[in-house]
Amino acid sequence: MTSLAPISRAACIGGGVIGGGWVARFLLAGIDVKVFDPHPEAERIVAEVLANAERAYGLLTSVPLPPRGRLTFCASVGEAVADAEWIQESVPERLDLKRRVLAEIDAAAPADALIGSSTSGLLPSDLQEGLGHPERLFVAHPYNPVYLLPLAEIVGGKATSAATIARAKDALDAIGMKGVVIAREIEAFVGDRLLEALWREALWLIKDDICDVETLDDVIRYSFGLRWAQMGLFQTYRIAGGEAGMRHFLAQFGPCLQWPWTKLTDVVDLDEALVEKIGAQSDAQAKGLSIRQLERIRDENLVGILQALKAGQGGEGWGAGKLLAEFEQRLRESAGHADAVDIHAPLPLVETRVSPAWIDYNGHMTEHRYLQVFGDTTDALLRLIGADLAYVEGGHSYYTVETHLRHLDEAHLGEALRATCQILSVDEKRIHIFHRLFAGAGNREVATAEQMLLHVDTRAGRATPAPEIILARLRPIATAHAQLDAPEGAGRAVGQKRSMAAV
Amino acid sequence: MTSLAPISRAACIGGGVIGGGWVARFLLAGIDVKVFDPHPEAERIVAEVLANAERAYGLLTSVPLPPRGRLTFCASVGEAVADAEWIQESVPERLDLKRRVLAEIDAAAPADALIGSSTSGLLPSDLQEGLGHPERLFVAHPYNPVYLLPLAEIVGGKATSAATIARAKDALDAIGMKGVVIAREIEAFVGDRLLEALWREALWLIKDDICDVETLDDVIRYSFGLRWAQMGLFQTYRIAGGEAGMRHFLAQFGPCLQWPWTKLTDVVDLDEALVEKIGAQSDAQAKGLSIRQLERIRDENLVGILQALKAGQGGEGWGAGKLLAEFEQRLRESAGHADAVDIHAPLPLVETRVSPAWIDYNGHMTEHRYLQVFGDTTDALLRLIGADLAYVEGGHSYYTVETHLRHLDEAHLGEALRATCQILSVDEKRIHIFHRLFAGAGNREVATAEQMLLHVDTRAGRATPAPEIILARLRPIATAHAQLDAPEGAGRAVGQKRSMAAV
Repeated sequence: MTSLAPISRAACIGGGVIGGGWVARFLLAGIDVKVFDPHPEAERIVAEVLANAERAYGLLTSVPLPPRGRLTFCASVGEAVADAEWIQESVPERLDLKRRVLAEIDAAAPADALIGSSTSGLLPSDLQEGLGHPERLFVAHPYNPVYLLPLAEIVGGKATSAATIARAKDALDAIGMKGVVIAREIEAFVGDRLLEALWREALWLIKDDICDVETLDDVIRYSFGLRWAQMGLFQTYRIAGGEAGMRHFLAQFGPCLQWPWTKLTDVVDLDEALVEKIGAQSDAQAKGLSIRQLERIRDENLVGILQALKAGQGGEGWGAGKLLAEFEQRLRESAGHADAVDIHAPLPLVETRVSPAWIDYNGHMTEHRYLQVFGDTTDALLRLIGADLAYVEGGHSYYTVETHLRHLDEAHLGEALRATCQILSVDEKRIHIFHRLFAGAGNREVATAEQMLLHVDTRAGRATPAPEIILARLRPIATAHAQLDAPEGAGRAVGQKRSMAAV
Repeated sequence: MTSLAPISRAACIGGGVIGGGWVARFLLAGIDVKVFDPHPEAERIVAEVLANAERAYGLLTSVPLPPRGRLTFCASVGEAVADAEWIQESVPERLDLKRRVLAEIDAAAPADALIGSSTSGLLPSDLQEGLGHPERLFVAHPYNPVYLLPLAEIVGGKATSAATIARAKDALDAIGMKGVVIAREIEAFVGDRLLEALWREALWLIKDDICDVETLDDVIRYSFGLRWAQMGLFQTYRIAGGEAGMRHFLAQFGPCLQWPWTKLTDVVDLDEALVEKIGAQSDAQAKGLSIRQLERIRDENLVGILQALKAGQGGEGWGAGKLLAEFEQRLRESAGHADAVDIHAPLPLVETRVSPAWIDYNGHMTEHRYLQVFGDTTDALLRLIGADLAYVEGGHSYYTVETHLRHLDEAHLGEALRATCQILSVDEKRIHIFHRLFAGAGNREVATAEQMLLHVDTRAGRATPAPEIILARLRPIATAHAQLDAPEGAGRAVGQKRSMAAV
């Protein structure tokens, strides 16, 4: 397995919440990362972000991640960037400081290394002034949590080359992020402009006691927040305009802009009283949940939302979910082929983790999620023998006609899961398989699934012999597996007193 | 089954996209609705919104909805409101028109009827001027699509009584909406204030060619849009502030408010050139998808997001997902009890529809979703015999130890699904059951599931006899079902040539 990305070595200068998020994104994509941060607790902070990221990312993707990249803490900027292909600067938001750090990076980095700044407001043209190679400096502005939210706004300055922008976008897209290129530089770019406008308005609403912070948050998350997780402002308004279209919508709602709501475009004075008011309301809203608990809830919700969007459009995905589906597809493709698998043992086909959404009211993994993992295992076997998506699009597929599940033990939230597949028998139309699922560090066997798959002509809607190209890949595995013991529990009917030999 | 809500008769004056959304919310909750709208195509428009709503709502809830309320179109305001308990006014956004319509409503409605206005900007104090019973007038401002987004901002005017606000909130909460009370009236309330601020900023960004509308939408939906589907602005910033907390966050980011980004607080001139620019960019962004297609995609995504949030927090739900879980619980509670079920036939326990997220790359319902529906069927049986959530919390439960699934036919997107359960045998520790799943109007049998359930002491983690209170409910059903034929396919092992009698 090779690195997913056009780059394999990155440097992160500054390792706070944002810098640490970049470290996690790179490492989890198999990229080696060198970090420089003079903060005495930098290693602890990065480790905490990384722990959150690994947990969330393990829950998010149903495809095994590549081996994690190597993490090295360095004693200087020069040491960190010396052999880096991508350098991400995430130091505090002061122009003088950023310029000093970028000059150091510029002097020590390879001439063709990409240099991204995490600034949320400064102009790239101001940042690149005085650099030896200003053409490779750009803004790559991410959103917290960086390890789950895919967006990075890519903004070039006057001296940034078009090739730099294109390379930056490619590198981000390759690791599952969404590099969005902003056409013209402007302070705070696009996302923070929008956020700042809303934030200003929100502060007035709280200051004037129109509502408290919990009410304001509820207004967002029970209405347009749900909309914006999948379509933005303009596409949403396009729909609101109905058949009459966007131009009609603008004509209808344009005049509202002139209504006398101008007070709220003033700048609110964030004085001590307002800070204390918001602080106290926020404490009440949190209902005793700590920041760590809120982070975990947020991450689990984001994982659920991203997975929901991935399942949309008949499995093709939509928006950030489509991005995730495409990333998983790349993970699969880079994960090696049949040749690399030892066929003289049950095939280790799936590794995943127990997602929050998989837990039922008993506190255990829900029944049908076992079958989801076993279904993924069957899909992995089918890809291995060449019955992949392209094969399905060609009009043939294997359908499951029968499944027998046994529950042997319980799997818990966040536990690692590992599934293996043993082929019991094969003929030209059928594959009879037996999956075993193991959980946790101790590899407890938690469930088994015996399945019969039937090769079908999907257009004609009937069983048909599989072609030789599939059977030729299947037979060597079946022959090798014929030497293995029949698994305990194969051939059972529900409620049968003792196990039978495999059929 | 009775109506879910404190109200059982509503009137909707104005039946456009918003009014039609209210009609759908009420009808689907089992409330009768009378509509008055002088628009010549009002019936068609309401029918279209209702069709969308029924489809989306059927996909959203895994619990059968109550019988739909009765829909009547009336020839006058007076006729529509004469016996209504809730009257929702959704006429065009002009103060003079709304006042005239509200005066008509006020004169004809019962004195204690609630009168909600859908206005998105006008002050309730201005709307209630001159009414005979101004104390029962309030704003109930919803968000499009009204049938999926739960929020309604409840805003009282100077003359609105506290009892009215409380009754309005209760009535909305009962039908699965989220009534959020805004403390003080202000033009455009809270949500539209926030949206308007962001909208103004967005128009400048487009006008100044900082980005196009698709880029702007991507910036939203790949970043903070995902955050806001589950936590709002302040809770998100509380986390961003980290252990140092909200007050620290405000101290750190407050100064940004004073940065020289003031141009964007001006009002943009939405002239013909800008309207055309946005219109053309929006056409390009839509990539040929019609409004109907976009609506369907949006609704499917919203269903997926709401269901993901419902599955969060170990099945307790979070935010709008928690609201959905609570609504389903009320649906279940109002759906009748064991006494009402005919036990001399397989029990009809689950009705649902094939969700978009359930479709796989073959275009069929995914394997594990069958088991999800069968799992819901088992849960419904357990509730019926008293092994409900409270029972689980008391330390006992039935666990599935074994399942045998047969796939007989395919289920397609949006198709109605109906599951029945036949009890094969029962002893003090075990329940042996056989579920059948039927799809579509023709009731095609698409799958069966045979399961063995074991009664367990969840704290001790071992099987234990069920108490008499459970067995007493179970035995009459088992005795009655013993008279039924053993279902075809029971007792089978995977790959077995022909079916055996039930064990």
